[in-house]
Amino acid sequence: MKLVAYRKEENENYRTGVLTDSESIADVEELSKQFGEKTLPANPVDFYTHALEYIEELQKILQEATGYESLSLHDVHLGMPLGKAKKVICVGKNYQEHVHEMKSDIPDFPVLFAKFDNAIIGPEDEIYYPSITEKLDYEVELTVVIGKTASKVKKEDAFDYIAGYTLANDTSARDLQKRTPQWLQGKSLDHTTPVGPWVVTKEEMDNSHAVNIRSYVNGEVRQSSNTEHLIFDIPFLVNFISEIMTLEPGDIILTGTPHGVGLAMEPSGLLQAGDRVKLEVEGIGTMENQVKKV
Amino acid sequence: MKLVAYRKEENENYRTGVLTDSESIADVEELSKQFGEKTLPANPVDFYTHALEYIEELQKILQEATGYESLSLHDVHLGMPLGKAKKVICVGKNYQEHVHEMKSDIPDFPVLFAKFDNAIIGPEDEIYYPSITEKLDYEVELTVVIGKTASKVKKEDAFDYIAGYTLANDTSARDLQKRTPQWLQGKSLDHTTPVGPWVVTKEEMDNSHAVNIRSYVNGEVRQSSNTEHLIFDIPFLVNFISEIMTLEPGDIILTGTPHGVGLAMEPSGLLQAGDRVKLEVEGIGTMENQVKKV
Repeated sequence: MKLVAYRKEENENYRTGVLTDSESIADVEELSKQFGEKTLPANPVDFYTHALEYIEELQKILQEATGYESLSLHDVHLGMPLGKAKKVICVGKNYQEHVHEMKSDIPDFPVLFAKFDNAIIGPEDEIYYPSITEKLDYEVELTVVIGKTASKVKKEDAFDYIAGYTLANDTSARDLQKRTPQWLQGKSLDHTTPVGPWVVTKEEMDNSHAVNIRSYVNGEVRQSSNTEHLIFDIPFLVNFISEIMTLEPGDIILTGTPHGVGLAMEPSGLLQAGDRVKLEVEGIGTMENQVKKV
Repeated sequence: MKLVAYRKEENENYRTGVLTDSESIADVEELSKQFGEKTLPANPVDFYTHALEYIEELQKILQEATGYESLSLHDVHLGMPLGKAKKVICVGKNYQEHVHEMKSDIPDFPVLFAKFDNAIIGPEDEIYYPSITEKLDYEVELTVVIGKTASKVKKEDAFDYIAGYTLANDTSARDLQKRTPQWLQGKSLDHTTPVGPWVVTKEEMDNSHAVNIRSYVNGEVRQSSNTEHLIFDIPFLVNFISEIMTLEPGDIILTGTPHGVGLAMEPSGLLQAGDRVKLEVEGIGTMENQVKKV
């Protein structure tokens, strides 16, 4: 199942939707009213507060539902699929070849850092390139969506706490990231970090550790790897992070980016105004965003 | 004016309150219903969404109000004064002597890092000491509360965007903080970071850059400095941070800690289960929390 946040008009709130084929969606609240035992929330934030429970309910509904209304993806605007970001936990240095291209060392423990909500945008939004940076870079990342409250979760139980997967572009202002020892200021610029286009529920991705992951700038492949190369894999990360902090449904973990970032290219492949950055993870799909100077 | 979040019973929601003398509070919603032109929100999160506007309204109300009901501080439990943390932006290395005791270098730019909401507790809560760390440390910090949306704010306008000040203990698990290059994992353990006891509105602190700042462990002074020693002062920080990310009302900035942290003491002054940590900033007051092994 692929879950979106959508709206038809700019002044509307985003609503939870579900893809019914590759080009159409149905409204989750409407589906549940027509075919379900309980009404599921229209607001994606409320939906993800009980993500695993509501996903299960929606799966049952879709098995029964027929003749419901659907909307073309072309007629709606997709927003950040979770409606609003809660904790955005990023993992750095998690692909060996990327660590090498950044002339860094393989870490003994996952390197964690944060983004704030101000940075997060939807899959059809423009990536802002503000004048405070001159080195904006892309980073494709397989992103884990937490489905229920997770504290001190064992590796073998990790998938029980995951609702699904999405894509994120961990856009980074390299000059700001590196001017102090802490990366936050280069990672949380307003309106820079697209997440989407949808959440693929976990039963649709039976092996999230063996999927191709790629990024393209203006059609040119820049990053191309496979999630089998993650240094710390998803169960490791869920265990590691949940030992430190309680994860809540709707929290997301950006699992790190493979080699091929713009900063490490010769000549530089950093982003320019007008560039189109496309991310692709096998089993999820693609997300393309244009870079806009602001 | 000193604003609190309080509740009478454990199963109640926190409500916005205002100190009417050093030992009593009044309920802000009730005051506004009785004496105001509009009803002010009971929920502190809603109150801080329009902090500057509502603080002004409340000031008018308190000039008129007489004979209203008040509650003893002893009969209520105080929570994190903002109800819930939004962005928690921490500034590292912002007092010269602290930078030296940490054997680090004076930064060219403010060092920013994040805490997540899971870490934040109220002024009367216990600081949890989980078994994942063996090096829990205290850090007293003057904390700025943002009062209205702030983007690209000039230094000379910075105070227009500030609602007031509070205290925070930027409790740090030194072993986790330093095992990777990014500090987040040592800074955001569950239930470790008290904020409070109240928000002192800015007109009560006419010089937040010339106040004594201290911490005590079991009554012994550990940190003792003055905010005049901030390397990057409050207008600098509001300008610097708001150039990077839009600040929203209710966001907080922890402005950094002075020298005297437990890690730098010989012998070590790191926290132990049962310790009582008291923070004090002149013009705000004190906040004391006990450390509890969990």
